[in-house]
Parts: sequence; C-alpha cells; structure tokens
Amino acid sequence: MIQGPSVKPGVIDLLGLLAYAELGSFFRLAGDAELAPSLRSKGQLAALAAAEQTHYQTLRERLVELGADPEEAMAPFVEPLDSWQERTAPQSWLESLVKTYVGDGIANDFYRKVAGLADEETADLVNGVLAETGRAGFVADTVRAALDEDPKLAGRLSLWARRLVGEALSQAQQVAVGRPELAALLAEEKAEGEAGGVSDLAAISRMFASLTEAHAARLAAMGLDE
Amino acid sequence: MIQGPSVKPGVIDLLGLLAYAELGSFFRLAGDAELAPSLRSKGQLAALAAAEQTHYQTLRERLVELGADPEEAMAPFVEPLDSWQERTAPQSWLESLVKTYVGDGIANDFYRKVAGLADEETADLVNGVLAETGRAGFVADTVRAALDEDPKLAGRLSLWARRLVGEALSQAQQVAVGRPELAALLAEEKAEGEAGGVSDLAAISRMFASLTEAHAARLAAMGLDE
Repeated sequence: MIQGPSVKPGVIDLLGLLAYAELGSFFRLAGDAELAPSLRSKGQLAALAAAEQTHYQTLRERLVELGADPEEAMAPFVEPLDSWQERTAPQSWLESLVKTYVGDGIANDFYRKVAGLADEETADLVNGVLAETGRAGFVADTVRAALDEDPKLAGRLSLWARRLVGEALSQAQQVAVGRPELAALLAEEKAEGEAGGVSDLAAISRMFASLTEAHAARLAAMGLDE
Repeated sequence: MIQGPSVKPGVIDLLGLLAYAELGSFFRLAGDAELAPSLRSKGQLAALAAAEQTHYQTLRERLVELGADPEEAMAPFVEPLDSWQERTAPQSWLESLVKTYVGDGIANDFYRKVAGLADEETADLVNGVLAETGRAGFVADTVRAALDEDPKLAGRLSLWARRLVGEALSQAQQVAVGRPELAALLAEEKAEGEAGGVSDLAAISRMFASLTEAHAARLAAMGLDE
C-alpha cells in the first residue's frame, strides 16, 4: 500500500472503517424496506440509503487519492460491522427507525471527533460529509408520533436502543484491539492535555463514553428513556 | 387529484409508473448485493442503486409540482412491477448484472420514446434523468469478461435475457389494459403520421416491438445472442 508522506498511520484505517460503515448502512437501510408501512416511507428510506452511498463514494475516493487500495482498507472492518448489523437486525419498522437514528447519530459524532485527527484535507472532507444532515429528522418525528399513539412501546424501544449501543461498543473494542494504529490515532484526541500513561484502550473507552452522552440526547428527541 | 390544465390525461400515470419503476429498481439492486463477488462490485452496485433513487426523487417531485399525490400515482403500478421483479429474481451475480443492463436499457428507451408525449417541462425532466447514463458500462464489461472466461455461460444467459423481456412485455400489456388513459397517451407516439384505426393496444405492441430491437443491440454489447 503506497501512502503519501503526510498521512498519519491509522488514517487509512479510519477512512476504511468509515467507508465500510457507510456501505453497510446503505445495504441495511435498503434491506429494511420490507418493514416500511407505506410507499411514502419506503421512498424516504431509499433517500436515506442513497445519502449513505454518496458518503461511501466520497470516502472511497479519498482513499484512492491517498494511494490506498480502498477495498483493502475496508477489509478489516467488514466482519465487525457486519456482525453488528446481524446482531441488531430490526424486527419492526420502529426498530429499524430507531436503529437508523441511533446509528447515524453515533457515526456522525464519531466523525466529528476524529475529523481533527486526520490531515486537513481529510478533515475537510469528513466535515463536508457531515454538513448534509437533517435528512434523519423524519425518523425522530415518526418514532415520537408512534409513541404518542401507543406509549407502551417506549419501554421496549428504549431497551432496543440500549442494545444497539452495547453491541456497537463491543464491536468497537474488538476493532481497537485488532487495529493498534487506528487505536493510537483515536487515543490522541482524548490524551491531549492529559498527563501521560493513558493507555490507548482506556482512552478509546472514554471516547465512546462521551459518544454515549450525545446518545442520551438523541433518545430524548425520539421520546425514549436512556 | 388536482391537476394543472396543461397536463394530458395519462401523464400522471406515466410519471407514477416511471417513479415506481425507479424505486423498485433501487430496492432490487440493493437486494442483489449478496450475490456480488467482491467488496468492489458491492460498491458499484450501490452506486447504480443510488442513481435510481435520484431518478425516483426527481419524478416524485414532478408529480408533486403537477398537483398529484405521488403515492396515489404510483399505486396502480406497484403490483405489475413487483410481479416482474419477483418473476425475474436473479439466482447469480451474472444474472443480476444482465437484468440490470437489460432492464435499465429498456427503461431508458421507453423514457426517450415517451418524453415527447408529455408537457415540455416533464419532457425536459425525463431527458435530464436520462442524460446521466454511462454508469452501467461496467455491467456490460463484467458480463463480457465472464463469457470470455467461460463461453458455455452464453446460452443460459441468453435464455435469461429473453425471459426478462418476455415477462416485461407480459406485465406491460396488463398495465396497458388496466390504464386506458396511459395506453392512449403511449399510442399517440406510434399513431402519428399513420392512417387511423390503429387501436391503442396494437400501437403499444408495436412500441414494445421497437424497444425489443434496441434490446438486441444491448445483448450483443454483453456478448449474448438474441
């Protein structure tokens, strides 16, 4: 794998992870269409999925620009991300929506945190991908409307959201163990300004803990408890 | 359904048909991903699917502009198009590619033929949707490469392509019977400059016959016989 001199170790990993996450989300969203209750919501799901595909293409192109083989860069993350998707296959339209909202939200927070760790051009690109948000608004609205109609759903969906995050943290820890350069890159963000001796894995745990804080706000937006 | 005065009967039907065809293709392409032999081809499939989604959104917006309810406009075509998809579910990656190429090709020829039948703005929009083609080039290349490696595949894939068209013509005839205003609109194209007495259904048969001619050229591009 040929890399330009300005690319920190781990950046290719990071872009590969994000690219495969987007591709996986694309197929997952498209696959959930059979759960959609109407033609209108099927179309909205398709639009969300297509946006993920655009992100995937952007990240893939950046990998090519950096001299990396994009498929090689994505390969280490196929198994953990596919595992997450399989272990959190939604059984209903509402579960699918909550997964979309929670998953997109965590992914976006993660992007924002790590954008500053990569080279400037990659950071601009990642921030650009994030800039076109707001599409997921209908998701939170739909979940809230369903809860208004049947408040008993809240308990089950709150549990579901917790499981989504738990499974994500578990897969993330495995990725961190298997990709030490990526872990080191991610640990930089938290270690800055701190006394030394912070192990990468501990730093990553704290990083994910802070992702979980934003998660609580997203649950509230859908009318769910933590 | 409120319609502007300039909209011919049948145009809403036409846009509804095209919109649902694009949405159906989006989900079909995304669903075929499990047949893809590599991460690279999965990504290419996702890009093709996302392009269909963009077309769907464009056509849907046009329906809204014309004062139609887009889901209502699509509804009559859900069953025939879903039937076609179900009756022609690909069993292999190559069958999926041939279906993409043949299906997109017929759809594009159909768009081109009918664009002139709608109001000018709709025609511009349909031609605009068509303008961004060329993405399917990798499909024909991949099929040809597979045939070069294993020429015995040609017979089976040629039969498959014939079945795709046969099933499409069968569904199209059902649509023409069920939607007389759409049939009348489509019949205009062929009837122009001809002596009177051409029934709509006969005109539509001839229109589809001419689509089948272009189909032969597409088969040749993939290295298949008619």
